[in-house]
This record gives sequence, C-alpha cells and structure tokens, in this order.
Amino acid sequence: MSKKKRRTLSHLRLLRGQRKKAGMPPGSVVYTGEQPAVPQPTLFMLMDYDEAVFEERMLINIEQAFDFKMKSTATWINIDGIQDESLISKVGKHFELHPLVQEDIVDTNQRAKMEEYDGYMYMVLRALQYNYETHEVESEQFSLILAKNYIITFQERPGDVFDQIRPRLRGNKGRARRLGCDYLAYSLIDAIVDHYFVILDVFSERLEALEDQLLNNPSHQVLTRIHELKRELTLMRKNIWPLRELVNAMQRTHSPLVSEPTRLYLRDVYDHTIHIMDTIESLRDVVSGMLEIYLSSLSNRMNAVMKVLAVIATIFMPLSFITGVYGMNFHNMPEMSVGWTYPWGFWAVILTVALTMLIIFRKNKWL
Amino acid sequence: MSKKKRRTLSHLRLLRGQRKKAGMPPGSVVYTGEQPAVPQPTLFMLMDYDEAVFEERMLINIEQAFDFKMKSTATWINIDGIQDESLISKVGKHFELHPLVQEDIVDTNQRAKMEEYDGYMYMVLRALQYNYETHEVESEQFSLILAKNYIITFQERPGDVFDQIRPRLRGNKGRARRLGCDYLAYSLIDAIVDHYFVILDVFSERLEALEDQLLNNPSHQVLTRIHELKRELTLMRKNIWPLRELVNAMQRTHSPLVSEPTRLYLRDVYDHTIHIMDTIESLRDVVSGMLEIYLSSLSNRMNAVMKVLAVIATIFMPLSFITGVYGMNFHNMPEMSVGWTYPWGFWAVILTVALTMLIIFRKNKWL
Amino acid sequence: MSKKKRRTLSHLRLLRGQRKKAGMPPGSVVYTGEQPAVPQPTLFMLMDYDEAVFEERMLINIEQAFDFKMKSTATWINIDGIQDESLISKVGKHFELHPLVQEDIVDTNQRAKMEEYDGYMYMVLRALQYNYETHEVESEQFSLILAKNYIITFQERPGDVFDQIRPRLRGNKGRARRLGCDYLAYSLIDAIVDHYFVILDVFSERLEALEDQLLNNPSHQVLTRIHELKRELTLMRKNIWPLRELVNAMQRTHSPLVSEPTRLYLRDVYDHTIHIMDTIESLRDVVSGMLEIYLSSLSNRMNAVMKVLAVIATIFMPLSFITGVYGMNFHNMPEMSVGWTYPWGFWAVILTVALTMLIIFRKNKWL
Amino acid sequence: MSKKKRRTLSHLRLLRGQRKKAGMPPGSVVYTGEQPAVPQPTLFMLMDYDEAVFEERMLINIEQAFDFKMKSTATWINIDGIQDESLISKVGKHFELHPLVQEDIVDTNQRAKMEEYDGYMYMVLRALQYNYETHEVESEQFSLILAKNYIITFQERPGDVFDQIRPRLRGNKGRARRLGCDYLAYSLIDAIVDHYFVILDVFSERLEALEDQLLNNPSHQVLTRIHELKRELTLMRKNIWPLRELVNAMQRTHSPLVSEPTRLYLRDVYDHTIHIMDTIESLRDVVSGMLEIYLSSLSNRMNAVMKVLAVIATIFMPLSFITGVYGMNFHNMPEMSVGWTYPWGFWAVILTVALTMLIIFRKNKWL
Amino acid sequence: MSKKKRRTLSHLRLLRGQRKKAGMPPGSVVYTGEQPAVPQPTLFMLMDYDEAVFEERMLINIEQAFDFKMKSTATWINIDGIQDESLISKVGKHFELHPLVQEDIVDTNQRAKMEEYDGYMYMVLRALQYNYETHEVESEQFSLILAKNYIITFQERPGDVFDQIRPRLRGNKGRARRLGCDYLAYSLIDAIVDHYFVILDVFSERLEALEDQLLNNPSHQVLTRIHELKRELTLMRKNIWPLRELVNAMQRTHSPLVSEPTRLYLRDVYDHTIHIMDTIESLRDVVSGMLEIYLSSLSNRMNAVMKVLAVIATIFMPLSFITGVYGMNFHNMPEMSVGWTYPWGFWAVILTVALTMLIIFRKNKWL
Repeated sequence: MSKKKRRTLSHLRLLRGQRKKAGMPPGSVVYTGEQPAVPQPTLFMLMDYDEAVFEERMLINIEQAFDFKMKSTATWINIDGIQDESLISKVGKHFELHPLVQEDIVDTNQRAKMEEYDGYMYMVLRALQYNYETHEVESEQFSLILAKNYIITFQERPGDVFDQIRPRLRGNKGRARRLGCDYLAYSLIDAIVDHYFVILDVFSERLEALEDQLLNNPSHQVLTRIHELKRELTLMRKNIWPLRELVNAMQRTHSPLVSEPTRLYLRDVYDHTIHIMDTIESLRDVVSGMLEIYLSSLSNRMNAVMKVLAVIATIFMPLSFITGVYGMNFHNMPEMSVGWTYPWGFWAVILTVALTMLIIFRKNKWL
Repeated sequence: MSKKKRRTLSHLRLLRGQRKKAGMPPGSVVYTGEQPAVPQPTLFMLMDYDEAVFEERMLINIEQAFDFKMKSTATWINIDGIQDESLISKVGKHFELHPLVQEDIVDTNQRAKMEEYDGYMYMVLRALQYNYETHEVESEQFSLILAKNYIITFQERPGDVFDQIRPRLRGNKGRARRLGCDYLAYSLIDAIVDHYFVILDVFSERLEALEDQLLNNPSHQVLTRIHELKRELTLMRKNIWPLRELVNAMQRTHSPLVSEPTRLYLRDVYDHTIHIMDTIESLRDVVSGMLEIYLSSLSNRMNAVMKVLAVIATIFMPLSFITGVYGMNFHNMPEMSVGWTYPWGFWAVILTVALTMLIIFRKNKWL
Repeated sequence: MSKKKRRTLSHLRLLRGQRKKAGMPPGSVVYTGEQPAVPQPTLFMLMDYDEAVFEERMLINIEQAFDFKMKSTATWINIDGIQDESLISKVGKHFELHPLVQEDIVDTNQRAKMEEYDGYMYMVLRALQYNYETHEVESEQFSLILAKNYIITFQERPGDVFDQIRPRLRGNKGRARRLGCDYLAYSLIDAIVDHYFVILDVFSERLEALEDQLLNNPSHQVLTRIHELKRELTLMRKNIWPLRELVNAMQRTHSPLVSEPTRLYLRDVYDHTIHIMDTIESLRDVVSGMLEIYLSSLSNRMNAVMKVLAVIATIFMPLSFITGVYGMNFHNMPEMSVGWTYPWGFWAVILTVALTMLIIFRKNKWL
Repeated sequence: MSKKKRRTLSHLRLLRGQRKKAGMPPGSVVYTGEQPAVPQPTLFMLMDYDEAVFEERMLINIEQAFDFKMKSTATWINIDGIQDESLISKVGKHFELHPLVQEDIVDTNQRAKMEEYDGYMYMVLRALQYNYETHEVESEQFSLILAKNYIITFQERPGDVFDQIRPRLRGNKGRARRLGCDYLAYSLIDAIVDHYFVILDVFSERLEALEDQLLNNPSHQVLTRIHELKRELTLMRKNIWPLRELVNAMQRTHSPLVSEPTRLYLRDVYDHTIHIMDTIESLRDVVSGMLEIYLSSLSNRMNAVMKVLAVIATIFMPLSFITGVYGMNFHNMPEMSVGWTYPWGFWAVILTVALTMLIIFRKNKWL
Repeated sequence: MSKKKRRTLSHLRLLRGQRKKAGMPPGSVVYTGEQPAVPQPTLFMLMDYDEAVFEERMLINIEQAFDFKMKSTATWINIDGIQDESLISKVGKHFELHPLVQEDIVDTNQRAKMEEYDGYMYMVLRALQYNYETHEVESEQFSLILAKNYIITFQERPGDVFDQIRPRLRGNKGRARRLGCDYLAYSLIDAIVDHYFVILDVFSERLEALEDQLLNNPSHQVLTRIHELKRELTLMRKNIWPLRELVNAMQRTHSPLVSEPTRLYLRDVYDHTIHIMDTIESLRDVVSGMLEIYLSSLSNRMNAVMKVLAVIATIFMPLSFITGVYGMNFHNMPEMSVGWTYPWGFWAVILTVALTMLIIFRKNKWL
C-alpha cells in the first residue's frame, strides 16, 4: 500500500525541489526534477525545412545548431534532457532567452503557461504518456520557444508523443511544411493534448473495472483505489485548466508570430481541451456516484447482518425460556408427569412459537 | 447489471475513437462512431424551394446535388450516414469546407458549437430521440452547414426529429418557405431542442415511478437506478450547456447569414434551452433529495431492527435468569417445596417482569 | 403519500404540454395548461383613466376593447382565462403582437422574462397566492403587454393579487392615476412580488412547526415533509431568479415606455426580489441544518438502543452463566450441600456481579 | 428549547411586517418592527459644528431641527425611535426625502444599501451590539441621510455604538470637526463595522467553549448549539455582504457629497468588511469541522458499545453452552460421576475458553 | 488536547486586539499583537547602496536613518519590533506616511494588500517560517514602504527569511544592486512567497505520515489531527489569496515606482502564488479523501464487529436451546435413557448444527 501512496502523492513531492531553491536569486538555472540513477547524455535533434528543402540531423553538441538562428527556413531544435544546467544557460545566452525563461525550463514544477517576450514566445506544458508495460502514466515537462524562424523544444527524457509528426515533415504531407514554425508549434501541442484523451480512455477502462468490482464484491480496497483514481483525475484537471488558458492566449495573441490560418487550428485544440475538461468532470461524477453506492452498500450489509442476528435471537430466546421453565426443580409441577406433555405437548408449543415468529418476519419483509 | 452499466458509461466509451485518432494530422477525416453490424447505404435527400416553387428529390449520388450550390433558391441537402469518409471529403471539396469542419462532421464526439467561416457557418449538436420500444434514449450527432442559398445537414442514421418540418415546407404553411435558409436552420435546431423536453418528460415519469418504489419498498436496486438516472441527467446537462452557447452565438453573430426576423425566433430557442437547464436542475435536486431519503430510511430500518432485538433481549434475558435460578440443584432451596410457588408464584413473577419491561418500552416510544 | 408526491412533482408534469407541442411550428398558439373540469368563460375587464377621468367596465366580448388601442388615456385590459386560443389570436392580431408572444401567453411553462418589441414590451411572470382554505400555494402565469397607452394583462383564472390596486385607481389616490401605464405595470409587478413575501412567511411558519416536531418527536414523516418544503423553496428560487432579471431589464431599458420616476420605483422592486432571494437562502440553510440534526438524532437514538442492549446483555449473561453452573448435574459438587450457599451465598454473588457492572456503566456514562 | 428556537428563527419572523404591507401602495410609511410593550418616546439629539463652533442640544420636537437644513455648518440630527410614522413623514416632507426612502426608514427589514438621490444619499445598514447582560446580540436598523450640510440618522432604540464618536466631536480631537458631514458618515459606519468584530470575537469565544465540550462530552445538545451558532454566522454573513457593497458604492460614487480624503478612509472600512467576511468564513469552516468530528465521534462510540456487547456475548455464550451440556439429564453421562471433573476439569475448560477469547480480542485490538 | 486547540484557533484570537480598538478614531496607532513576556528592544538595520557603493549599519535610534530619505542611493531600513507605538508615529511623521498606514503597520491582523499613496506604496503581507525545533509554523506581519529611493520594512520579531538576499546585496552579485528599490521589494516578497513552498512541503510530509497512520491504525486522534491540518491549510489559503492580488496589483500599477524589468519578475512571483494555491487545493482534496476513507473504515469495522456477534449468536443460541431441551425434567422423556444418545447422538447433532451454520456463513462471505 505504501508504494501506491507514494505514487499518488508524488505531485506533492515535487515541491521539494522548490524547497531547495527557496531563497535563491530569481533567474537561477537549477534543475529541480529527479536525478536519474544512471546519468543520461543530452540528445540534440535538428530539423530544418521549408516547402522545398528538408534536412534532419542528430547533433553532437548544441553549438552546431547555433547557425540556424538566422536562417530563414523553419528550424526545429529538440533537446532531450534538461539536467545539464550549463547547457541550458548556453542555449539561453545564444538565443537571448530571459533568465526567468531559463529558470523555468529546468524547473520541472511549472504550470502550463504562455509568455510573450521580445521576438519569441515561451510555452511550457506537461506531456502525459501511458506506459502500457508498467501501467503507469508517465509525465514530463515540455518547454517550447517559438520564434519567427525556429522552434526550440526541451523535454526531460528521450521518447515523446510526436512520432506521427516527424514523418509528415519528412514526407512533406499535408500542410506541415507549407505552414511555418507556428503551425509546427500547434502540431506539437495538438499531439500532447490528443494523448490526454488516451490517458482518459485508460482511466475510464479502469473505472469500469472498479465499478464491476464494486457491484459484485465491495471491499475497502476498492474504495482506496477509487480514491486514488479520483486524485489522479483531480491532478489531471489541474494540468488541463492552465493548458486551456495557454491555447486561448496563443489563439488571441496580437503577436505576428502566430499566423491567421494557424489560429483556426488553435481554436480546434481549444475545443479539445474543453472536451477533456468535460470528460474529466463526467468521470469525477461517476466516481462520486460510486463512492455513494459503496457507502450505502455498507449500510445495507450492516442491515442484513443485524436482521439475521435479530431473527435468531427473537426465535431462540423465547424457546430457551420455555426449556428453562421445565428445567426448574419445583417439586409441584403437575405438567411434568402428564404423559403427553413430552414430546407432543412440548414440541407443539415450540414449533408454534417458532413458526409464528417466522411468519411475522416474513410479513415485515425481514426474510 | 453489467449490461446496464455498459449503457450508462457509453459516453466514456466514445473516447476510443479519439484514441485511434491521437497523433493524426489535423483535418484528418476519420469516422469515430460505431460501425453498424450491417453496412448502411448513405441516403441523400434534397429539397429546393422558394415561396413560389418546391422540389423534393431522393438522390442516387451526391454529385446530383452539386449544381444547387449556385442556385438562388433555398436548398436543403440532407445526408443520412457519415461512415463513408471519402464521400464527406467529396462534399467538403465541392462546397469548400475547411478541413477541420470535414474532420468534425465525421468525429461523433463533438460538443455542440457554432463556427463561422468565410461564406458559411458550421454548427454541430446532438439530437436526442426517445425510442418507445427499447425504452432507450437514442443519440446522434447532427451537423449543419448554413450558407446563403443552401443548407447541408449530416446525420448518423436515417430517421430524425424533423417529421413535422418537411410537410410545412411542402405545403407552404406559415413562414417556412417565405423566410430563407437561416429560418430553416432555426427550425431544425428548434425541433431538436423541443425533443429534449420529450426526453426530460420521460425522465420525470421514471423519477416518479422510482420515488413510488423508494417510499414503498426501498432497495439497493432502486438506489443504483436513481444513480443511473442522475448520470443521464448529468450527461444531458453537459449536452445542453454548449447548445445554449451555440444558439446565443448564432443570435448575436454579425454575419449577414442570419436575418433580423430569424434572430427573434432564436431568442425563443435560447429561452427554451434555459428552461431545459432549469428543469434538469430541478430533476437533479429531486434526485438528491431521494438519495438523502433513501439513506435515512436505511438508518431508520436499522433502528427498527435494533429495537426489536433490544426489546426481545431485554424481556427474555431476565426471565431466563429466573428460570436458571430455579433450575439449580442446591439442596437447600426452600422455595422449591412450597406448594403455591409453582405455578402461581413463578408465573406471577414472570408476568410482572415482562409487563414492566413492556410498559417501560412503551413509555420510551420504542413500541 | 402518493397524493402528496403528485403535488410536489407537479412542476415537472407541466412539461407534458411541452411534449404535445414538440415539433409544432414556432408561433403556434397552443394552450398547455390544465383543462378545468368545467369550462370557464373568459372574463374581460377594462379600466380607462387619466388624472381627470375614470371608466371601468365589464366587457361582453373582447372586440369592445379594440377601440381603446388608439385612445390617449391609459387603458388596462385584463383578461381572465387563456384556454380560448382563438381569442388570444384575435387579440394578438388587433394589437399586432408577434406570433411568439401569442404562443408564450398561452404556454403556461414560461420562465419570467421581459422582451422588447416595436412599440410594446412583453412581460411574463408567475403569480403565487396562498389559499388559506386548502393550505396550498396556487400559482398562475401572468402575462403583461405594456404599450404607450394601454396595458393588456392575461391571467389563467379569475381572482388575483391586485385587490388593493383597483381602489387606488378608482379613488385617484396617490400617484396611481397621475403616472401612466408604466407605473401601473410597476404596481402590478410590485403586488405580485409582495405576495411572494406572504408565501415565504407561510413557509417559515411551517418550518417552525416542523422544527418543533423534529426536536420533540423526530420521525421519517417529518423528514419527507422537510424535503417537500425544500423542493418548494427550490422551485420558488427558480421562479424568483429570472424575475429579478426581468425587473432589472425593465429598469435599465432604453425604451421610452418606461419613464424616469417609474425607474426609481423599479429599483425598489429589485431590492425586494433580492430580499426574497436572501430569505429563501436563509430558509434553505435552516432546512439543511434540520436535516443534519435529524440524521444525527437517528444515530443518537441508535446509540441509545444499543447501549440498553449492551447493558442488559452484559449484566444477565454472566448471571445466567452462574445459574447454569449450579444447574449442572455433576455428582461431586460440594457447594450444593453447604447450608448457607443458598440463598445467602448465591444471591450475594449475583448482586455483587450485577452492581459491579452497573457501576462500571455509570462510570463510562452509559447510564 | 422552544424559547431558543424562537430567537434563532426571529429573522424569519420579521417577514410578518412584510405580509401586513403586501398590496399597499409603494411609498407607504408603515412601521414593520416589533411594537415595544411600553410605548417609548422618540428622542431627538442635534449636534451642530464646524472647526470653530460646537453646539449640542436635546430637542423637544423635531421642528426645532428644521432651521438647520440651510445652515452652512455641519449638523447631525439623530432620531431614536421610528415607530411614529407621522413623525417620519414630517421629516421626509421637510427634508424632501423620496417616498420610498421614508418607507424604507420605517421598514425594519432592509438589506444594507446605498441609494443616491438629488442632493442627498440614503444609506441603511444593520447595527449589531452585544448585550453582556442577556448574552444576546441586539440588532437594530440604522438609516442615514447624508446631505451637504447635515446628516440625519434614524435608530430603532436609544443606545448605540457611537459613544466614542461624540466626545471626539465635542473635544475637537483629530480630524472629526475639520472634515465635514461625509467624514462623520464614515465615522458612524466605521463604528458599526468595528462592532461586528466585537460580535465575532464573542462568537469565537463561544465556539472555543463548544469545542471543549465537544471533545470532552459530546452530546446532542452541543450539536443543536453548534447549529444555532452556524445560523447566526450565516445571518451575519448575509448582513455583511451588502454592507460591503454599500461601502464600495460610497467610495466609488461620482457624487460631490463624498470628498477625496474621506474616500481613503472608506477604503479602510472596505478592507474591514472583507476581513469580517474572511473571519466569518473561517468560523464557518471551524463549525463544519466540528460537526464532522461530532458525527464521527457518534460512530466511534457506537463502535465501542458494539464491541463490548460482542465481547461479552462471545465469551459467555460458549460458556453457557457448556454449563447447559452438563445440566442435561441423560442417564448415561459418564463425565458426571468422575471425581475430578468438578471442580477441576470443569473450571479448567471454562477458564481456557474464556482466556482464549480474550487473547483473540486483544490481538484484534478490540480491547 | 486543549493546548493544541488553542493554537489552531489562534487566528480567531487575534480579533481581540480588534475588540480593544473598536470605536477608536481611525488612524489610531495601537499595537494589537501579543505582548512578549520580556520586552524586546526594537532593532534598526540600514543598508544603503547603488551599483558602486555599499554601506551597512546597525542603528542605535531611528533618527540616524532620517537623513537617508533624500539620498539618491537606494536605502533599506529594516525595523524589527513594532510594539513601540510612539516610534512608529515618529517614523510615520518623518516619512510622511498616512495615518491609516501607521495604524495598519502596528495592527497585526492585516490581510495582504497593496495601497498606493502619493510618493510611496504601502504593502503588508504575512511571512511564514517553519521552526524546525518546535515543529510549529511561525507567522509574522511584514509591512513594506516602497518609495523612489528607500524601502522601510517592519517586522514583528528579529529573524526573517531574507538571509539569502543580504549577501547578494553585499557581494554585488546578479541584478540585486544594479536594479533599484523596486527590485529589492520584489526580492523580499519573492523570498516570503518561496517560504510558503517550504511550509507546504512540511504539510505534505505530515499528511503522508497521517495517511500511513490512517491506513494502518485509524483512530479518533488521527481524525482530529487531519482536521487541524485542514484548518491550517484553510488559513494559509486565506493568506495567499489576497497576496496574489497584491502581486497582481503591483505588477499592473501605473506608478513609476515599479520599473519595467521588475514587472517581468513580478509576473514570475504571481505564477508562484497560483502554484501555491493549486498545491493547497491538492492537499485539501487529499485531506477530504482521507476523511471519507476514515468514515467508511469506521463503518467497515462496525460491520466486522457485528458479524462476529451475529456468527457467535447464531451458532450458540440453537445449541443452547438443545441443551435446554435435555435439561428439562419431564418424567417421560424416552431419549434420556437410550444408551447411545449421549455422547454419540447428542454430540453428532451439536456438531451438525454448528457446521451447517459455519458453512452457511462461509457461503455468504461472512467469514
């Protein structure tokens, strides 16, 4: 149980990085996430494209990407790994990122938000992915710098939800290469939001399984699992709410970085976030209903137990009293010596009393 | 029970189409509804009219409708069946619908919304219909393209709630043919909203039946049925809320597609949606009250059971103690041999004790 | 009980008229209220006045009122009875009322609202009246057409809450005849709102009675009556909320139909509606507290019952065990034949055990 | 108990005045408060001052104050007692108060509000005062007319919370006489708001006492007293909420009646009202927590009782069964005649069974 | 227990200062905090700096700081101790602080707020610090006057959360000395907000410990501690909410006192306050879930106890009845004398009955 708990309270744990940082000057680039057991090298991936040309490269060091800052083609620089604080500072310096942006990139406790700075936008959101092997929801912070000619994205770990976007860029399918950096930014956010649906789908499956258990075999364990699910839904709602604002702000910005056609697509993502909110609310309502049913089933079972007890006591107490009477040693009990009193008389009385009680219970619907 | 549950959680199931689509490029025309066991042909119905002329046709293929795009008369193209994704693309291409609109038409998870595009409006809402045979609420997604001279509507299945609108068009009764496409759009939405009242009426009947059961024979089964009803009301509220916004947006749009007289009628539909919201809230309040009554009736019955148990135990335990005393084998018990102790003395004591207890219980209102 | 229920759910019943109407063209003038057992004739009452002149007439048919449309004096046409749909159409035609207004007048399910049309305002609200004989709240829909020189009011039944307004008009007391139609409209709305206070007063009396019962003799019946009252309060809140908007809209309208002095009076009515809202909230809080007290009193009584049971069992079980011991037939029980064991020894043991138990219970505050 | 109840529901009683007034023409000056057992004379107090001069007078009749209407010095006319409706009309006539203002002054059911009229502002609020003798909160309606050169205040009874304001005026201390009528109005409102803190302080003391009782000796009586306190807090919140709006409206008015320096002070009062709201919310949270603790302590005690019962029954039922066995009269029971079976064998079995049961209970933490 | 309670209700106690002050003229400089057992001397610390120079001094009296008012370098005057009301008046007079500001500085009940005056801003907030020795959260009021060239801060006690800011000023690290007074004000607020995270972290650790206890050994004591934690969270939320408004107001002010670069940093603090709100909400949700689990675990344990009781009674009552039958003294009981009835027949019946009961219980999952 304690392992379970640790997982569900983990979002509160994250605050510890915050404690470490308390009192540091603002703009301090301090990684606050978990340190991996084995240090992971930071990976750099670069895609440079316009409608005509396409280039994809695995970089050895980040400096190789620096020349693309000024190139007029769209460039996507993806950085997997944010533990190396000096690297982030180097990127920040070259691309002229505000110290607070650099701080936020490596502080893995960010709420989703969009901030506009001179010449670029900074977005940060949380990407969720369901791991079908460990049956856990994996979460990582995703930061995105959107400028006129380049996008820089920062992820905590290799592996992401963009596996269906890259081939589209390579194959020049659809609008992907025709529209610029803002459309790419939209595509990335859209992919992240789409994966929220996958998580919710997993949750709703779990909920159905729990509901089956609840109706067939309600136990305290089911209760704790329902509460765990409720917490995860609450957590997810806390993630999606600011994400909605992010998308809305991006859609309504006056910045020239976001073109008109992309805004229409952003409206679509916005609708998706509202749809997710709605689904989370529905699931939470279902969970609340399940808790109510659980509690009333407890009362019902108590009632059933009490009825059995009452029935048994009500039948056997009078009977035992009768046996007690004829177990007394009074010298002058004439019934004792009359021939038919036992077994005929005695058992007739006993059966009459017992049957009368049973009929009364049946009438009151206790049996 | 599990069949029941499946139905009530079905709105969560719908997300699975979403899972299939996760990661696809935006504007992908992918049908996400249920595949019918037997493939259904898509049906096309066309009505072309103005105040003077009226033409109604069953089309063999959608291309037959394409010429009406430019005709100045009002044209209503109704398409029953949206599984054929290529067909929707064909329509989308000819009538210049935005890729996102095409995607939404076949994605049966839409919240009600109204979106304005150049030259047309796109509306999507959920039509509910009560099936008096299966006693189930049937739901389908209804999409509507409103342009100057034509309306295109998309439905999941044949059969709809517009059976009273078509004769009005044919017979040229009332305002139906005098006012243009926007009035037709209004009429369709109005018919859908009116059917929400029918559903609510069915729900309130069910609720009355459940309340009767609850007062006469409260059982755990009634509880689960009340919770089911509560879920369906919640679901319905989730449908009606964005519908209200849709109607409001349509009423307040600056678009010339909606004429002044039609706006007055839209205000009326808007009032209806608020009335529905109110009624749903009333029903939910009633449901909450019923749940409270159920829970307190559980406690009451427990109290009743406990009282019976306590009364029986309190009367017979002392009596059994007395019989126990005179069942003892002490050699020197003088009472045993006094002639009147049994039956007169003994039974007098027994009856006195029992009656005293009964009087006490009666005084304390336990009996 | 079922009669009771029928009354409290009656507001949901009203939807049935709505079901009948579903699918009809907008503007259909269809009466949706209850049909009286005996058909009631429609009554027409006319008052025509300015500061100088005053005329009051009972009309035989509505056509007698038509000439007053153009007269510059203020005219109040009151129509009691809205079952006759053709009559309403006739009035609607002569006074040029929008079809939707005609529809709303006879559809007795309206939420309170105010709608402005060219040349007149349409208001609809619900008038409540307490019937001191049947002890029921009677409710009827009140529609009001406010134009420059006339007011037309529609009521479901004869008998209304305006009995103190008519003498003021007749007697030319106060501002009643000096100020025009808008002041009359205000007076009528004010009278209706004032009667809400009367209803609330009746409710608070009932609540006090219920609270007395709850504290002296809590029963399941009291619970259902509290819930009934809660429902009626909820219903009333649903009525008053849109009424507040109506008054506010009327006060803030740009229409010249409402003069400046009247607006000050409307602000006063607005305050009254807020006061009513507040009182309803207070009563609902009281009701919630009563329900909590009821539930905890159930637990308390259960505790009391359980304690009696536990006390009885704890005292008599050990005692019965002792009698059982000396009822055994072992041949070698030396206590049996010692002279003082019975009654002195035995009863000493019994009393010691019983008293010890009682002292323990007293110490633990169980007795 | 019924006396208690009467007090806590008293705010609902107040509606009865409203019932009496229902249907009267607007602007009717009708006193709706309680009629004192002994008629109280109305008292008039007048203070006239500027920075240089100060005059204080007890008036015999209100006409003596009429001349001060035009005097350029600041004049405070305080009227204690509003039962005399004709007097209020006289004042209203002389100072040109709107009929609705006159009506509100004597209608003691007003929500706090501020209304601007030509040349004056009307404010009404509720003054609370803790009576340390009766331990009750006394409440009276306080009306205030703020004009350029005079303030008229109306109170229900002699005795108020302004005892520290008058000496400041007399002694010309601080800003009191330098700043004009608006500062005086502010001072009066500030004094009333400050006394809310006193009431809340009394409430929090009571709450502490109740919490002590709840932890040491939870009883149903404590519950009802907690609910009473909750009601009083709710009532107080209902009073303070519109008061906040009053202060805010006064601070933001465009009227020249309120000078700039006074506005700064009003911001301070506004902060106080928010602070009071916060404190009320805190107290309500504490109350809710106490109710939860009470309910779970009920369950806990029930558990304790049940455990005792179960322990006693589980120990003595098997023991009684054993004694029953050896009380049987079978002829052929060899154990009976073996010498050591009683007392050694029998009592060994009895003690073994009893101790085993006790050890099991101890292990399961039931004892 | 009573010591505990005193602490958690302490925020309500604070109102007592308010009671003392009720009725005093506005602007009265009255210290409302606790009087320390031993009077503490007030400490004055001064830092004067710009990018080039830095001076730090411990002052003997406040007059030594007065000359810095006009100096163009940034000056930070920190005052530890606000019990000395005359001192505050002296400072207020020299630096021309509004009387209401002086009043608020020494009134330790302030909600966080920011107020703009001519030439300076006044901010007040609550600084929390976790004392790792007493395991208590220490709270003090922090007031800040921000002017062009100086900052004056007032704290209740020596010792604060700024230990990491001073070295940065001394060492001229980062932006601290380059940016002016507004950046220093931001730094101080940021440090206070950062410490809220520390407190929350401590709370979440406590919560985990409580959750462990709840799952392993639920007791009434855990319940009261959960409620205490809930209260502290509620209190903290009440603190952070106005703090959020303070930061927002400071960020959006039109005042030239706050420079553009500092505003970006304030946006960052604003995000932190929202993050804290979110975390508090999460913790409150966790607490609510824990309370629900606690209550249902009570019901579960009750069920377990009742089942044991029912099982014991159901098995032994019939058995005792049988022994009762054969303990009767009827003369004519043929079973008595048949040789095999005891022990074979009797014990076979007893075991059959007992085993049948056990099998039934096992089937119904009671055992």
